[in-house]
Amino acid sequence: MTVTIIGLGLIGGSLALSLRQHGLAAHFIGVEQSAEHARRALELGLVDEVEADLPAAVRRADLVVVAVPMDAMLTVLPQVLDATGPRQTVIDVGSTKVTLLAAVAGHPRRGRFVATHPMAGTEYSGPEAAVLGLYEGKTVVLCDTAHSDADALQLVEKLFRALPMRLLYLDAQAHDLHTAYISHISHITSFALALTVLEKEKEEQRIFDLAGGGFASTVRLAKSSAAMWVPIFRQNRPNVLDVLDEHLHQLQHLRDLLAQEDYAGLTTQINQANHIRKTIP
Amino acid sequence: MTVTIIGLGLIGGSLALSLRQHGLAAHFIGVEQSAEHARRALELGLVDEVEADLPAAVRRADLVVVAVPMDAMLTVLPQVLDATGPRQTVIDVGSTKVTLLAAVAGHPRRGRFVATHPMAGTEYSGPEAAVLGLYEGKTVVLCDTAHSDADALQLVEKLFRALPMRLLYLDAQAHDLHTAYISHISHITSFALALTVLEKEKEEQRIFDLAGGGFASTVRLAKSSAAMWVPIFRQNRPNVLDVLDEHLHQLQHLRDLLAQEDYAGLTTQINQANHIRKTIP
Repeated sequence: MTVTIIGLGLIGGSLALSLRQHGLAAHFIGVEQSAEHARRALELGLVDEVEADLPAAVRRADLVVVAVPMDAMLTVLPQVLDATGPRQTVIDVGSTKVTLLAAVAGHPRRGRFVATHPMAGTEYSGPEAAVLGLYEGKTVVLCDTAHSDADALQLVEKLFRALPMRLLYLDAQAHDLHTAYISHISHITSFALALTVLEKEKEEQRIFDLAGGGFASTVRLAKSSAAMWVPIFRQNRPNVLDVLDEHLHQLQHLRDLLAQEDYAGLTTQINQANHIRKTIP
Repeated sequence: MTVTIIGLGLIGGSLALSLRQHGLAAHFIGVEQSAEHARRALELGLVDEVEADLPAAVRRADLVVVAVPMDAMLTVLPQVLDATGPRQTVIDVGSTKVTLLAAVAGHPRRGRFVATHPMAGTEYSGPEAAVLGLYEGKTVVLCDTAHSDADALQLVEKLFRALPMRLLYLDAQAHDLHTAYISHISHITSFALALTVLEKEKEEQRIFDLAGGGFASTVRLAKSSAAMWVPIFRQNRPNVLDVLDEHLHQLQHLRDLLAQEDYAGLTTQINQANHIRKTIP
């Protein structure tokens, strides 16, 4: 099988490595806007060749993976489907779904497309960030699969199961709601925490000296790139605003309890927060 | 050397394991209020014996480590110093310093006491949470060392260097300020994030299914216990409130940029947050 990966960064590059490792595809074609990223992806062995002509790269593939930031995705995915034939399969691996699925809803090749979201990533980006095993044991969400052709869906299910990943089926609305709650808000929290510490702690050496594992863990996502995350927040804006307002409310409540020296109240809230242990082992 | 550890939890237990591993002490006496924790600490080999009589346990030690929550610390440390002789050394390993140092400022044995804060921990607590190597390569802050006897300070410096840890000298005010910025705020952020997700995401299975590494990392500290953290927030209240207000301001600013669809502004803020990469490798 030949796979074309469009966007040779963390997500697309890691998926290429996993598909190759499991013997699921023999030949990988890359499409990448940045000449530097394309060169590095070849050096790192993420793909076997780089093709400048997008429609040509699509036509030669059995499977096309679109792994570009969500703003570019809205124009690239329709272009990919324009070049897709009746036996080829296309997936995206993007973090929002409602806007994207609306953008291709009426496309004549909509059936060849399967919307997927592998729930894995790191705070790094670019081809160097690609890591083997990123997806192993993680969940992949498949969205609105009733609009995909049966054979295209079966191929995608087979590939993700082989990595192996757990398959979860959600409609696009539910996907965008739940990922706002569980993934997007974590990034905003972490960006705000980094901004707070950089504002208050003017002595950078002190941050380095005093940062234990807890701080590093909480602020890790703040290293994530604006190029990837601003389009996600933009496309999932109503859900992100909704959960962000709840987060501001919770933070303000903790602040008020501390300001009022209500330590019993603070204890109750922390005990409640501890329930997250049940779901995050 | 005989070491008495008062409080056989994560912090005291891990220190006992490290001191023993490096051959820095041969005999460990534990003092522990919870009979269950005392029994487990013995089973796990954190200490060689448990002593119910605090003054007796202090008198038999060359070094006493007080590793109880910060509220108990305010009463236990003076009791320990009451029983301390002129050749013994006492340390605390607590997360706040101004209130504690004020509580023992006039004590006749103040010179035998060295205030320390090893900047390491996990979200777990109790003797089972003790892990070997917790402190390796981390920073330990020594506070207001001019008030400690030279020989007591030298012993403590030698022990921490042997683990090995990096020594950092701060006055108590600076310690409490910087730890609010870098450690305490991370915990409040994480508690608030857990409360947010638990409030919004009523389907617990969805949290489990969708939580990638990013969410787990950001919410990890929310598993930390109220028994440990409420006294820290209480004793460092002005600094914690100050940094918490800045955090609320930063979060509100990100929220407003998104609400106003100011994506250029959001990009600027995220690029600024990315500077944390320089200090957190």
